[in-house]
Amino acid sequence: MTEPFPYIQGGVVAAKGFQAAGEHLGIRKNRSRKDVALIVSDVRCAAACCYTLNLVQGAPLAVTKAHVADGYAQAIICNSGNANTCNANGVEIAEGMSALVQQYTGIAADDVVVASTGVIGQEMTLIPFISGMAGLAAALRLGGGHDAAEAIMTTDTVAKEVAVAFTLGGKTCHIGGISKGSGMIHPNMATMLCFLTTDAAISPVCLQTALSAVVKDTFNMLSIDGDTSTNDMVTVLANGQAGNAEITEEGAAYATFKAALRQVCGELCRVMAKDGEGASKLLTCTVTGAKDKQTAKLVAKSVICSMLFKAAVFGADANWGRVLCAIGYSGAAIDVSKIDVQFISRVGTISVCTGGSGIPFDEDAAKKVLSEDEIDVAVQLNAGDEQAIAWGCDLTYDYVKINGDYRT
Amino acid sequence: MTEPFPYIQGGVVAAKGFQAAGEHLGIRKNRSRKDVALIVSDVRCAAACCYTLNLVQGAPLAVTKAHVADGYAQAIICNSGNANTCNANGVEIAEGMSALVQQYTGIAADDVVVASTGVIGQEMTLIPFISGMAGLAAALRLGGGHDAAEAIMTTDTVAKEVAVAFTLGGKTCHIGGISKGSGMIHPNMATMLCFLTTDAAISPVCLQTALSAVVKDTFNMLSIDGDTSTNDMVTVLANGQAGNAEITEEGAAYATFKAALRQVCGELCRVMAKDGEGASKLLTCTVTGAKDKQTAKLVAKSVICSMLFKAAVFGADANWGRVLCAIGYSGAAIDVSKIDVQFISRVGTISVCTGGSGIPFDEDAAKKVLSEDEIDVAVQLNAGDEQAIAWGCDLTYDYVKINGDYRT
Repeated sequence: MTEPFPYIQGGVVAAKGFQAAGEHLGIRKNRSRKDVALIVSDVRCAAACCYTLNLVQGAPLAVTKAHVADGYAQAIICNSGNANTCNANGVEIAEGMSALVQQYTGIAADDVVVASTGVIGQEMTLIPFISGMAGLAAALRLGGGHDAAEAIMTTDTVAKEVAVAFTLGGKTCHIGGISKGSGMIHPNMATMLCFLTTDAAISPVCLQTALSAVVKDTFNMLSIDGDTSTNDMVTVLANGQAGNAEITEEGAAYATFKAALRQVCGELCRVMAKDGEGASKLLTCTVTGAKDKQTAKLVAKSVICSMLFKAAVFGADANWGRVLCAIGYSGAAIDVSKIDVQFISRVGTISVCTGGSGIPFDEDAAKKVLSEDEIDVAVQLNAGDEQAIAWGCDLTYDYVKINGDYRT
Repeated sequence: MTEPFPYIQGGVVAAKGFQAAGEHLGIRKNRSRKDVALIVSDVRCAAACCYTLNLVQGAPLAVTKAHVADGYAQAIICNSGNANTCNANGVEIAEGMSALVQQYTGIAADDVVVASTGVIGQEMTLIPFISGMAGLAAALRLGGGHDAAEAIMTTDTVAKEVAVAFTLGGKTCHIGGISKGSGMIHPNMATMLCFLTTDAAISPVCLQTALSAVVKDTFNMLSIDGDTSTNDMVTVLANGQAGNAEITEEGAAYATFKAALRQVCGELCRVMAKDGEGASKLLTCTVTGAKDKQTAKLVAKSVICSMLFKAAVFGADANWGRVLCAIGYSGAAIDVSKIDVQFISRVGTISVCTGGSGIPFDEDAAKKVLSEDEIDVAVQLNAGDEQAIAWGCDLTYDYVKINGDYRT
């Protein structure tokens, strides 16, 4: 899990030729909350998307799929406060949002990626967009990434922005992105909402291949609550402004691009998990020694999804039996008698299980390790060389509080 | 979901020829908590079991599998306070428990069903059994079912006992049982712990066939927290004392027996779900109009497993979008545009979704319906005639509290 590329500022507008804005247009009642983000490129971009596999899908996803079917897009519009899902007029709303982007930016409506997040099944109208789009378009600026990141937040407590710089054929390139959590997160082939931009030149086909591969190792290994959302989507726009030779096939340049994309997505997973609804702790599970990648992933994800273990982590209780239990029902074919488990945080490492059986450990020291705000469960399967990481968080009173009364 | 058989008292000793006891032997530190249950039949019984599919399995399951391999058993011993799982000497302990039953009851050790429940991976010794088995055996009595039910409780707040009477060929028969919840419950081909007895005469093969079928529709449709336990087991002993002609093939008598068994298991699911860890409400999902049984089951179980919807039920929030979301990721191939959803409790029915889209409803009335302690989500798929029910509970602060500090 090396991170070879330097992090930079700018988030979704770190790459050359992108501008963004985020404002309160009135979808939310609370006027202090931004609720619409707009991201545009100076030029048309290769575009790739991954979508939720939930059969109930937001209307914006259907519209976006049609708009990027040709492999190109130039703008992203996203509102929070309403998911525009299970509404009779959902497609009409999403198409209307795109038409308004065209009216005020000149970008063709069918080059607009549309997304919505918020309550499912709540009536929605175009009125806030009609009255506010002119102002939103006027607010577009090179430094607008943070405003856009804020505008897509729902129960998130922090805006999520990551960007890195890398080099392709002597040209400096950038990939940056913003994302939103923080509940209904258990991605399946895609994720909550994540908008990525890059100035690297890459063909639509290569961009989609890289994104699909990276999503499998990053967003699909993230879970807050086991609920796969209806509106999950990750989009990347590549405008080629870095001046590198366009990547059109797998090779060294493709590998570098994919590694940078993976780093950005992995870091977004980390910050999203840490800000999971009600979370007080980031919980990661690092599985090593697996006979194959799929086994490593199944085990890692099962551990970070266990409600019982998540609650134990909240209580700083070294209840490793729940880790073994979650490994056992993960669906992976593992040899239980070979499993070693350690709990790791910045203050130390505690070995709790060797060869599938418990070993004596210092309960006070374990409590100290588990009282930190970033906990890794290291699972060694001793059966091969493959590994995987999954990101999650603890289960807290606040998760229940937030979700017991989200709508009202 | 008709319940044609009358409920009777007696639980696991309602059937003729069974005695039970439950006492504190010292596995738990708290002397006021019973921790070992013993159930015996006057004569050898046909026996059937279903076990957890978790790859991490308690040692008692391995021992029980060997003991009932011939289709017969005569006693059940079960302790709470320690799962006897992930212990190096687990099999030795479970065999020792069986040997002690033989020593004090005369029942052959290899006719003993052994079970344990409690913390995983905690050292265990035979000493409490060695010192206490004589007293436990002496306490066996016809009215001892409630003591046994109490002795297998962990975080349960109420003892769980159900029994019914039915008739086979003019002979009155009985099936009764006890079970324990109340966390780490998401059965997969078996369940937490459930011990059933009957005085009906039925062959081991027919008994296993009936049990396996009933478990699929009952315990496998129950979930408290999505965590499949390492120690799940359901066992039924049939001693033939009712005097009916032995059931040796499928037919009218088999159908009656299976219906009675299903009723007992279904009712145990209901009481277990209602007493789920931290639960304040029983949550059931009744799916009708499915094109096939599997679709109905997938949808029902997905709804009652959704953490987000469970939290909404706790908050009496009619957030039906989360029901649609859970249906969408259930894995079932459904037509979203045909789905109707209603919330039902003893004070009324609220329709919230028709044809996959929201419909206006009275929020105050919905709050009243959802403030009751038994909530049914009725999902009509309008695609066929199959149906299913799943049992669960709400997600509360107390679930987090109980599981944040279970060991210590």
